[in-house]
Amino acid sequence: MTYAVGIDFGTESARALLVDCADGTEVAVAVHVYESGVIDEQLNGVSLEPEWALQDPADYVSALQHAVPQLLAETGVPPESIAGIGVDFTSCTMLPTLADGTPLCMVDELRSEPHAWVKLWKHHAAQPEADRINAVAEERAEGWLRRYGGRYSSEWFFSKALQILDEAPEIYARSERMLEAADWIVWRLTGVETRNMCTAGYKAMWSKRDGFPSRAFFAALDPRFADIVDEKMSRALAPLGGRAGGVCERAARWTGLPLGTPVAVANVDAHVSVPAVGVTGPGRFVAIMGTSTCDVLLGDELAAVDGMCGVVEDGVLPGLHGYEAGQSAVGDIFAWFVGQVGGTHVELAREAARLRPGESGLLALDWWNGNRSVLVDADLRGLIVGLTLATRPPEIYRALIEATAFGTRVIIEAFEQAGVPVDGIVACGGLPDRNPLLMQIYADVCGREIEVASSAQAPALGAAMFGAVAAGEHATIVDAVHAMAAPPRVTYTPDSGHVATYDALYREYLRLHDLFGRGGDDVMRTLKALQLSNPVAIS
Amino acid sequence: MTYAVGIDFGTESARALLVDCADGTEVAVAVHVYESGVIDEQLNGVSLEPEWALQDPADYVSALQHAVPQLLAETGVPPESIAGIGVDFTSCTMLPTLADGTPLCMVDELRSEPHAWVKLWKHHAAQPEADRINAVAEERAEGWLRRYGGRYSSEWFFSKALQILDEAPEIYARSERMLEAADWIVWRLTGVETRNMCTAGYKAMWSKRDGFPSRAFFAALDPRFADIVDEKMSRALAPLGGRAGGVCERAARWTGLPLGTPVAVANVDAHVSVPAVGVTGPGRFVAIMGTSTCDVLLGDELAAVDGMCGVVEDGVLPGLHGYEAGQSAVGDIFAWFVGQVGGTHVELAREAARLRPGESGLLALDWWNGNRSVLVDADLRGLIVGLTLATRPPEIYRALIEATAFGTRVIIEAFEQAGVPVDGIVACGGLPDRNPLLMQIYADVCGREIEVASSAQAPALGAAMFGAVAAGEHATIVDAVHAMAAPPRVTYTPDSGHVATYDALYREYLRLHDLFGRGGDDVMRTLKALQLSNPVAIS
Repeated sequence: MTYAVGIDFGTESARALLVDCADGTEVAVAVHVYESGVIDEQLNGVSLEPEWALQDPADYVSALQHAVPQLLAETGVPPESIAGIGVDFTSCTMLPTLADGTPLCMVDELRSEPHAWVKLWKHHAAQPEADRINAVAEERAEGWLRRYGGRYSSEWFFSKALQILDEAPEIYARSERMLEAADWIVWRLTGVETRNMCTAGYKAMWSKRDGFPSRAFFAALDPRFADIVDEKMSRALAPLGGRAGGVCERAARWTGLPLGTPVAVANVDAHVSVPAVGVTGPGRFVAIMGTSTCDVLLGDELAAVDGMCGVVEDGVLPGLHGYEAGQSAVGDIFAWFVGQVGGTHVELAREAARLRPGESGLLALDWWNGNRSVLVDADLRGLIVGLTLATRPPEIYRALIEATAFGTRVIIEAFEQAGVPVDGIVACGGLPDRNPLLMQIYADVCGREIEVASSAQAPALGAAMFGAVAAGEHATIVDAVHAMAAPPRVTYTPDSGHVATYDALYREYLRLHDLFGRGGDDVMRTLKALQLSNPVAIS
Repeated sequence: MTYAVGIDFGTESARALLVDCADGTEVAVAVHVYESGVIDEQLNGVSLEPEWALQDPADYVSALQHAVPQLLAETGVPPESIAGIGVDFTSCTMLPTLADGTPLCMVDELRSEPHAWVKLWKHHAAQPEADRINAVAEERAEGWLRRYGGRYSSEWFFSKALQILDEAPEIYARSERMLEAADWIVWRLTGVETRNMCTAGYKAMWSKRDGFPSRAFFAALDPRFADIVDEKMSRALAPLGGRAGGVCERAARWTGLPLGTPVAVANVDAHVSVPAVGVTGPGRFVAIMGTSTCDVLLGDELAAVDGMCGVVEDGVLPGLHGYEAGQSAVGDIFAWFVGQVGGTHVELAREAARLRPGESGLLALDWWNGNRSVLVDADLRGLIVGLTLATRPPEIYRALIEATAFGTRVIIEAFEQAGVPVDGIVACGGLPDRNPLLMQIYADVCGREIEVASSAQAPALGAAMFGAVAAGEHATIVDAVHAMAAPPRVTYTPDSGHVATYDALYREYLRLHDLFGRGGDDVMRTLKALQLSNPVAIS
């Protein structure tokens, strides 16, 4: 028997999964909660600006040191039976390091400098830089912009890197390498810097055909930014399914794995979920639903889809174009609401399930953390309309779920309008198992069946599949899928009595979506500007 | 020493106040909480439709039986020292009765019929009837419509009466009298039906110059409605400041007051507050702030003010035009929010007070109970925009306060635009004393000083003043004001550092106010229509 280990580095914790290479049986999982979690209020006692979200890379190493040994100890599987290891990560989660990979935030004199830390995917303070990138790219008619749905996000790599240059030029100067945390953890595992094509393509403007944008483009953003690729990044990119190296001596001590155990090229949580749920070709829309939602869809051809996050050839599976879209807050919104009113998800969902569509009289725009697709605007904000003195918490809870479902429908329709077919929906991630009401509402709102993946650990399973491929246990990732993926566990079918009401509500959603999201009414931006303006004296 | 008793019949309770007729000293107050309170969910175990709000007239009698004897017992004031008694009431709060004043809901076989009960001011289920009244009035170019700001409210008398006819014609047929609860309680006190000019003018289309609308108008609404005035109401209306009669035998038993004690003509809580806060002439805007807010302003001339509730010559003080406007939910919205999130007003206000204007990034439309002025539309709903994952309850609490302040500013500006001057603001009612943050925000938003009346019981004091006038203790209400009203207790001054930000936020409020309130975007009405549409099967 041979096994693979997949490690999924999420927003609050990392999950390590031990899988049978032959048939994908999930033997055990170990969860390591990050000690510092998301750092968005204070860093070493100093308040962070709004929109910031940092992490401590020590938490990632700690996950290797705890979760992998725990897996081995609990299962009794001998370390030499681990054929390979794969990792996936949130993205774009990036950090500046020294030449040897030491994070700048671990350099003593830089620990109190926020820009030395890991910028988490949901760090949204680089919107001014994203705006500048989009303006310059449009002015120069940069061809790559089309692959990002016409708008490069504040969440992506160069927005964040440019924010470091803008706000902390000394940190930018000190940083010898800048890279995705996904590649950084593989570097820690193997001792060798290896960069993956997936994040380069989805977050860093790279494509197989054109490489990175020109030096002139970067220079137009800022002369000091001109050589970022050659100075702090790399043009050598490893394809998915490849082997990054073997476990190095230090990582062997951390994990208890034998020296040289094959390590796969790093991958992204959303993209690695596609093979995990058994999808190997075009047409099936994979929604990875958690604090936020990432959507991945495969297509035979390159199409320009309005407001998608990115499209990368070979970015998910070889030979196909992988389209990525997403919603920057989903589970986070429900958690926020539970935090406001108290109670539990289970109680709220139980009462919310008794409501018929439209009964609450409420409608929300699900932009509590901006809008990633299709508007690509972190400045957008949440809205609830229809509140009355009789409105109760379960009604708002349901309206928030419905709003995220409407957001998903907008994305699906954008793909269809661009000629990228959507034949089915497969959901995975933390939310589908925890909240059946949510899945039923999504099926009703989208008017389509939704399959829920059988694995509750889809990203970690996908990472393990890539680990198995890196180890040579399967020749290709598609072979690994055929051997290791299980059929969907549950299917939600639209309730024909709900579809018409949701169609009517969706029309209202779409009109408000366009009004507030496409510049018809700028109230959200104005409120943000007032919020960020200099404090005035308080009487 | 002679005393007057003022009884203020509010939404949840009645307050009886014992006042020295000579100088207005408030000797004692007794509060009686209504046992049934607001009946808006179930009536005798049967669910009420949304938007309904009823009351039990037995609660009003119970207040007479408990609060007045308690006042006498607690103070030791001999009953014969009570020179007179005055009452004020919420309005339009109306009921159908038999010819002797027995409420239909007290007739055994009608107790389970919702339309037999008192319709409270905030009963909002008569919007279809209000819409019909407005349509017919416009078609017929009815002159009285101008005195209601161009829109007759669903809260007013004939909307509620017409709803009874529409939905329960047998109750309409059984009802021999239909009248304001204010006049009904005076009838119970004196044994004689007496109707006041104030509610007739503000709620029932009457004016001193033109009387009621024509029979043809009522017939155009419904042939069965043609003679409502002559069949179920009265054209004999008593002026404010007059004496309705003396305490009758039964009421003497209830209250402990001597038979024949003078009882003033009934009045409305908002209007009676004007003399209580010392206002006797044009220019000072009186805001009576509680669960809802009523605004009263005196003017020398009759002007058409867009969206005001009503203007009545002699309706507040003799010789002046009394303008009424208002907001249908104020304290109710804050109470709703506290009910959602738990905690207390005091805690939320303390944290909200630390925020600078604009800091929360939130903006709300304060239409949790529709909009009374200046849009006059019960179908409008509350809205919050600017929500993020970082939004905390005190921020929402403050945004809700700000929204109601913006609503007040809209009303003040409507008066000014119509040429009715506003020189100052005087606040009274339950809210100003309980929530200093609220008063400061109102001053900052309106950019004007706000005086808070010295009496915490302004309506009851005003009612007592009218009682003193009815008893002949003062020749006119203006004389009573000069003798009995005290100067304002606190004055809130606008913080110059806040005014500019609130001006900017007000511009945003006003744009959304017009967009959603004046037909630019009908989402609120559509949501209400979906909410009220027939239930569909739940899967």
